[in-house]
Amino acid sequence: MTSEDEAAGESAHRGSNRSVTAKVLALLEAFTPEMPEHTLSELARRAEVSLPTAHRRVAELLEWGALERGTDGRYRIGLRLWELASLAPRGPGLRAAAMPFLEDLYEVTRENVQLAVREGTEVVFVERLAGRHALPVRTRVGGRFAMHATGVGLVLLAHAPVETQEVILGGGLDRYSPRTVTDPVVLREKLASIRRHGFAVSDGQVTVDAVSVAAPVLAQDNSVVAAVSLVVPADSAQPGMLAPAVRSAARGITRALAQQPPG
Amino acid sequence: MTSEDEAAGESAHRGSNRSVTAKVLALLEAFTPEMPEHTLSELARRAEVSLPTAHRRVAELLEWGALERGTDGRYRIGLRLWELASLAPRGPGLRAAAMPFLEDLYEVTRENVQLAVREGTEVVFVERLAGRHALPVRTRVGGRFAMHATGVGLVLLAHAPVETQEVILGGGLDRYSPRTVTDPVVLREKLASIRRHGFAVSDGQVTVDAVSVAAPVLAQDNSVVAAVSLVVPADSAQPGMLAPAVRSAARGITRALAQQPPG
Repeated sequence: MTSEDEAAGESAHRGSNRSVTAKVLALLEAFTPEMPEHTLSELARRAEVSLPTAHRRVAELLEWGALERGTDGRYRIGLRLWELASLAPRGPGLRAAAMPFLEDLYEVTRENVQLAVREGTEVVFVERLAGRHALPVRTRVGGRFAMHATGVGLVLLAHAPVETQEVILGGGLDRYSPRTVTDPVVLREKLASIRRHGFAVSDGQVTVDAVSVAAPVLAQDNSVVAAVSLVVPADSAQPGMLAPAVRSAARGITRALAQQPPG
Repeated sequence: MTSEDEAAGESAHRGSNRSVTAKVLALLEAFTPEMPEHTLSELARRAEVSLPTAHRRVAELLEWGALERGTDGRYRIGLRLWELASLAPRGPGLRAAAMPFLEDLYEVTRENVQLAVREGTEVVFVERLAGRHALPVRTRVGGRFAMHATGVGLVLLAHAPVETQEVILGGGLDRYSPRTVTDPVVLREKLASIRRHGFAVSDGQVTVDAVSVAAPVLAQDNSVVAAVSLVVPADSAQPGMLAPAVRSAARGITRALAQQPPG
């Protein structure tokens, strides 16, 4: 089939005013942590494309390996996409440089150790180490969370571009626990303090039973590219005591990144 | 831009007889472990599309987050693709179920522990745990390897569909070390033995200094979906002694998969 053929007959649904690339990406983003598998008609509906369009594009994605089809006939994200994604510098690349320091932090604490980056106005968790007896937390590797509540989010927000800060501070701050800071004025002060002290404390602001201490990881140009945190039960926590360990790990990762080839 | 607009003017290069989806996928697969970053013109050349086409498609991929652009102007795989790929059941899904068993195997041996699946005629490594003092190995998480040399590859090959086996056995078997089995008749006997005994031994067949012992992980329909292996230095190895630990881990992962929701 040629590009011309393929463009013809794409007038139904939202399809007509979107590019083919946008439709392919819409089919892919129909897959979410909550809905990781779909039938063809679910895919078409969620991507807002016609069933014939979905059929044609999905066949191509399936052949390439971006999608896989189970014995139950449902579609899932394919291994080939995961292989390709393993080349993302801000995901596995960062993780590889950080891993020895995350492991050390885990070994000495046996608590939750997290590594995250900013994507737009949210935090994406790149790695999480947790003992079987560590406090259950709400995060998932590859998952997102709001910036203003978590320790890593506060660090990344404190060092985000001003425009990003304004979008978040002006957009209504969701409350996750009775202790979440939702007042923009208070949050602004908190961010200034994080920049001044070099670490963030989220004390019961996601769930009341957890305290997170987080510190920034820097690129060679001194921009903040990631944050590392330690999440411990609130009743055992003395955040001030944990900060040196977290900051040391963050500095170690910063140093390891500087030794990587530019990327 | 509409699909019609976009299809027009795509006549140069290989572009004209490929669909837009194929061109987008070709741009993505220009990124490899050896070449994880590209300029726009490199991308166009490697994907065999015109520069204007590359420019347009890359802009869309960049906006969505499938690609990212560094301060050096070069393009890399984006974090958004990695987030999406974290939903692949055969990658992170399998890894999550397997992790406690891989960790136990690592804790008791402090050697290389690997988890792999078959993709077409090759092995893809889904996870690898290695101590700082473990034997260096040639594999990489998200990376591929030939099936007939590694322990995990031999297990997956022994249980692959007959057509896949024929392609590999009939296609010329690469030699990685003086001990790699490259005679199809000998390899066939080896595969039968692996099916009979429930584990594979690759003794110096990738590098002469390493022995790998591998065992199959089964799905609920008893098909082999993955393989787990332990790779140790050849001089210390008694493969027969390691097999029970590896087979136990594989059975543990099989059991954990059976407890997951179907997928």
